Amino acid sequence: MSSSAPARAIDMANLTAPAKLVEPYLQRFLEARVMPGNLRDAVSYAAMAPGKRMRPVLVIRSCQAVGGDASDALPPAAAIELIHAFSLVHDDLPAMDDDDLRRGRPTLHRYTNEAMAILAGDAMMALAYDVIFTQITDPRKARDIAAELTSGTTDMIAGQVYDTLPDFAAAVTPLDRLKTIHRHKTGALIRVACRMGAMCGNASADQLRSLTDYGEAIGLMFQVVDDLLDVTQTTEQLGKTAGKDVEQDKLTYPAVLGIERTRAEVVRLQQAAHDALAPLGAPAQPLHDLCDYMAVRTK
Amino acid sequence: MSSSAPARAIDMANLTAPAKLVEPYLQRFLEARVMPGNLRDAVSYAAMAPGKRMRPVLVIRSCQAVGGDASDALPPAAAIELIHAFSLVHDDLPAMDDDDLRRGRPTLHRYTNEAMAILAGDAMMALAYDVIFTQITDPRKARDIAAELTSGTTDMIAGQVYDTLPDFAAAVTPLDRLKTIHRHKTGALIRVACRMGAMCGNASADQLRSLTDYGEAIGLMFQVVDDLLDVTQTTEQLGKTAGKDVEQDKLTYPAVLGIERTRAEVVRLQQAAHDALAPLGAPAQPLHDLCDYMAVRTK
Repeated sequence: MSSSAPARAIDMANLTAPAKLVEPYLQRFLEARVMPGNLRDAVSYAAMAPGKRMRPVLVIRSCQAVGGDASDALPPAAAIELIHAFSLVHDDLPAMDDDDLRRGRPTLHRYTNEAMAILAGDAMMALAYDVIFTQITDPRKARDIAAELTSGTTDMIAGQVYDTLPDFAAAVTPLDRLKTIHRHKTGALIRVACRMGAMCGNASADQLRSLTDYGEAIGLMFQVVDDLLDVTQTTEQLGKTAGKDVEQDKLTYPAVLGIERTRAEVVRLQQAAHDALAPLGAPAQPLHDLCDYMAVRTK
Repeated sequence: MSSSAPARAIDMANLTAPAKLVEPYLQRFLEARVMPGNLRDAVSYAAMAPGKRMRPVLVIRSCQAVGGDASDALPPAAAIELIHAFSLVHDDLPAMDDDDLRRGRPTLHRYTNEAMAILAGDAMMALAYDVIFTQITDPRKARDIAAELTSGTTDMIAGQVYDTLPDFAAAVTPLDRLKTIHRHKTGALIRVACRMGAMCGNASADQLRSLTDYGEAIGLMFQVVDDLLDVTQTTEQLGKTAGKDVEQDKLTYPAVLGIERTRAEVVRLQQAAHDALAPLGAPAQPLHDLCDYMAVRTK
């Protein structure tokens, strides 16, 4: 496992193949659950929206990295996608980011209405727990996975508050504010994805530590790359409005450190992720490649 | 235990004494949890708002009814109050009921802002799980309680959808629609409160069945009484706007069955609750009295 392998050699279709397991699994779960028809439609619209399924892929690849089977990791993979989807639905609401489009489709409150978007978001959070408690039979494992999901969800919501309704002490430096926002808002669910996968694969304490370190490194890296893309890519390349952070005077890595030091930070985090995986050997190669893909992604 | 005991003989202060255990417990939990200061304020404002704490009281009284100790039931008691509070915060939002006042105080989105009310509501749902996973050490019990909470929460959200965004098949009768709405929207959390209490008291299967039947009866009864009060009480007596259901042309028991048959339904459900408690004997007397109080309440 070498960190000098060129990113272009990565077979992304193969790397993200677990997404193709999660989608039908989640769809079947939603179809089987008794709920009002319009609520099911709204939840399905949001949860089954086209996407990279990065978090579910990390759950499954982390499970496999410690010798587990992909099928053992499907409940938390579906659960974390539901949590991610719920957060996007609520973030898009008029009182929050007020977005009309997400990945080229109307956001849920534009597709249905605001009341349904609020309720469907709430339902998705509850359904994330439902998939865990109904699909994982071992009580201790279900408890551990659900507790992990809870930690990620509370941190993610705190991150959203730090980001949109900042309430920091005056003494906190901009870089520390930024790390707090990024680690909570994006990092928490990514860390938790890796940890839940490890747990499903019955990871040892050392293996869980490795995957936690990996998850923390790529979680922060993901958001730093996001900050960088906003200033270096065009709207056309990104598939979403570029330059939005600067326009909104947002606290970002390039704004605080400049572009070159931000690039160096990406490389440092990429290396930290590689180092964390080293003890896991060959089964962790897909996570290594995912990290490299995330480091050099252009949208 | 006689069902002919006059309701006026009930010592409500003693009956609802467990509320005085839950409030400081929940407050301490929220103070100890690491989160942004403004989010903690918002969550505390909503979760610690003056209220009857009916659901936590039912959790604790149900635990005691099967021989358990009140202290064993505090985590689910706090959790269900957080879920109830979250549902009120989201229900009050402009896109939902658009209420400015709740129990004489500004609703959370008026006290803070809409974005914070959405996020604090989300946080309260996640914190409900957090209190269970951090405060209940036995993995199986934590799993069972959290799964129960999930069932109540998904049903409650479905009930909110049935009530505000109805999507029933044309063939469903008004009474069946009404039962579906009431059983989900209000009944689910009340049933789950009784069941979680029973579980914390290590109830036998028969005892759990008794408390489930009791919870279902009083859950429906609570909402039927609510419907009745809206047409029989003045705004002054209720402490909230009376006649709102008729004005909004809402599906209610009095609208479907008339006032007299609705009163008879309350008595029938009250009796069903008494019958369900009979096998539990004297330790269930507080639940019996709570049922009677709920049947004759005037606000």
